[in-house]
Amino acid sequence: MNYMLKDENAIYYECGYSCDNALYLRFGKEAYFITDGRYTVDAKEHVRDAEVRIAADLYAEAVRLIKKHRIKKIVFDPKEWTVFGFERISSAVKCRLVPEPDFSHKKRIIKSDEELKILAKAAKLGRKAFKHLAKEIRSKGFGKDEYALTYMAKSVLSDYGRYDLSFDPIVAINANAAKPHATPTETILQKDDLLLVDAGLKYKRYCSDRTRTVQADKYLMFDTHQRFKRKKIQKAYDLVLKAHDHAIAKARSGMKAKKVDALTRDIITKAGYGKYYVHSTGHGVGLDIHEMPYISSRSETHIEDGMVYTIEPGIYIPGEFGIRIEDMVAMVDGRAKVL
Amino acid sequence: MNYMLKDENAIYYECGYSCDNALYLRFGKEAYFITDGRYTVDAKEHVRDAEVRIAADLYAEAVRLIKKHRIKKIVFDPKEWTVFGFERISSAVKCRLVPEPDFSHKKRIIKSDEELKILAKAAKLGRKAFKHLAKEIRSKGFGKDEYALTYMAKSVLSDYGRYDLSFDPIVAINANAAKPHATPTETILQKDDLLLVDAGLKYKRYCSDRTRTVQADKYLMFDTHQRFKRKKIQKAYDLVLKAHDHAIAKARSGMKAKKVDALTRDIITKAGYGKYYVHSTGHGVGLDIHEMPYISSRSETHIEDGMVYTIEPGIYIPGEFGIRIEDMVAMVDGRAKVL
Repeated sequence: MNYMLKDENAIYYECGYSCDNALYLRFGKEAYFITDGRYTVDAKEHVRDAEVRIAADLYAEAVRLIKKHRIKKIVFDPKEWTVFGFERISSAVKCRLVPEPDFSHKKRIIKSDEELKILAKAAKLGRKAFKHLAKEIRSKGFGKDEYALTYMAKSVLSDYGRYDLSFDPIVAINANAAKPHATPTETILQKDDLLLVDAGLKYKRYCSDRTRTVQADKYLMFDTHQRFKRKKIQKAYDLVLKAHDHAIAKARSGMKAKKVDALTRDIITKAGYGKYYVHSTGHGVGLDIHEMPYISSRSETHIEDGMVYTIEPGIYIPGEFGIRIEDMVAMVDGRAKVL
Repeated sequence: MNYMLKDENAIYYECGYSCDNALYLRFGKEAYFITDGRYTVDAKEHVRDAEVRIAADLYAEAVRLIKKHRIKKIVFDPKEWTVFGFERISSAVKCRLVPEPDFSHKKRIIKSDEELKILAKAAKLGRKAFKHLAKEIRSKGFGKDEYALTYMAKSVLSDYGRYDLSFDPIVAINANAAKPHATPTETILQKDDLLLVDAGLKYKRYCSDRTRTVQADKYLMFDTHQRFKRKKIQKAYDLVLKAHDHAIAKARSGMKAKKVDALTRDIITKAGYGKYYVHSTGHGVGLDIHEMPYISSRSETHIEDGMVYTIEPGIYIPGEFGIRIEDMVAMVDGRAKVL
């Protein structure tokens, strides 16, 4: 099989190295990693199972290689290539370029044992970071605004610059938590506020992802047992937790992803909160923070052993509060194991 | 004129708002900002001069609007669109889609007075942050490794979470500075090391960018007057500074960008260091950290009043050290004014 890759994580998956300016070509058993002179030393040291080619014009070099090998057909992911980059190649070669959306993501949907170990370690580091963050917030978070708290989350999750982050952490207070993709505001954390934190870090390039919604007081902990002052919040929280726990207990390999989605959604919908659960149950996690499988109400994907994804039901009452509880699970021996 | 945009900064430039899932269409005097339900509130509050359309499928909504208005021709930037997104539209409409590479960047090459003010403020904040960073390094930087120093630079440049960064700061010691795009290592900062810092922040979404190379000791300051212990370093440093100052003094509106590049390059080349100056003199700065004009040896672009770009010559001796001195300039009344 022949294919060409442009995405940084897609390339890393193939050869154990990538950088922000590279192309990867595979022609049957032969493979090429093309980059520019800035990355010569690193590429030659780290690229596995591919020949490193250094070129000022990456596309021209790809065209040369395609012609040299007289390649007739190459698969590419149209979500990964810009029209510009694609046409630099397609206009210069006669071979057939076959679009296959999500080509690399499809290859990566089942994690290897090695990948599972790395993801488990990433999740463990993420869990430890949440513990550390709780301590930081208890001792100096009150009176700080969401900008400062987000910065605190970045500092702790990255272990003060040691790790990259999976994404910019979400740290949202009360009504701000009602936006699933909240950005920081000047809202200040006060005693008894509801606090939502969604954050993750990268370990060996693999992502962790976790969300906790907690009562902010001097006992603040990022565990799932929470006692909120407002009954309305407690009721919604207990429902989200029930949905979260239920899906983790009942998800099985062989189920369709939409069935897993229903495990959380049915509980929330039956309790009358369906319209406040505005997103799907979860998403795969690996080199990308969002990858396959997508755990949505429309996904026909069959869940299999070796898949890693999030379970993250939520309830968002606009203008009041938002709740989300998220963990990563790996399918092992037919069941969902929390990482 | 009709055009369609996908890039976040390209869209922001048109209507004062953008988010990570949006399309922008302009048909003559009418314009549409299309996004999904997560951004309804923010889009309706902030989008200027365009009708906000909320849709689950952004491409389908774009197709509907193109058909409804019976549009015949639309310009797009092939570097901005993926093959996938482009084909979702091109396959569903009859109108002619005309590629124009760098369409938005070309529009943005001359900054308005308002933009110049914002960029000047961004640069000023960046300069202040470098002062603050020098203080931090003097008091607690020695004995720390590049990871910790990079984290320190991120903290100070972002004002502890208040500002976004233009890019991940580069903080490189001695031989690591010889890589123009160095990434952090465990190298520890010691007295009399050479230290290179390249960093910027965003103010109202506009970027600052600055590089200083300094002698790290208890008097460390990020100004351009530096006394290095090693003569070889001092000689290269003085040359880079001379090239930097010369280009700022001699750049004029009306010159071609390649002439401005030659203002730095000729000095370094004549002194025999040409092969160690491995990049171009600079790049435009605005909403994107790299935009037009590109100040390279091949650029035929005419420099004009209102352009903002960097002057950043460098000398990189592999395995030994690297030096770069960078400032942002705005062309005002025919001359380069340092921001």
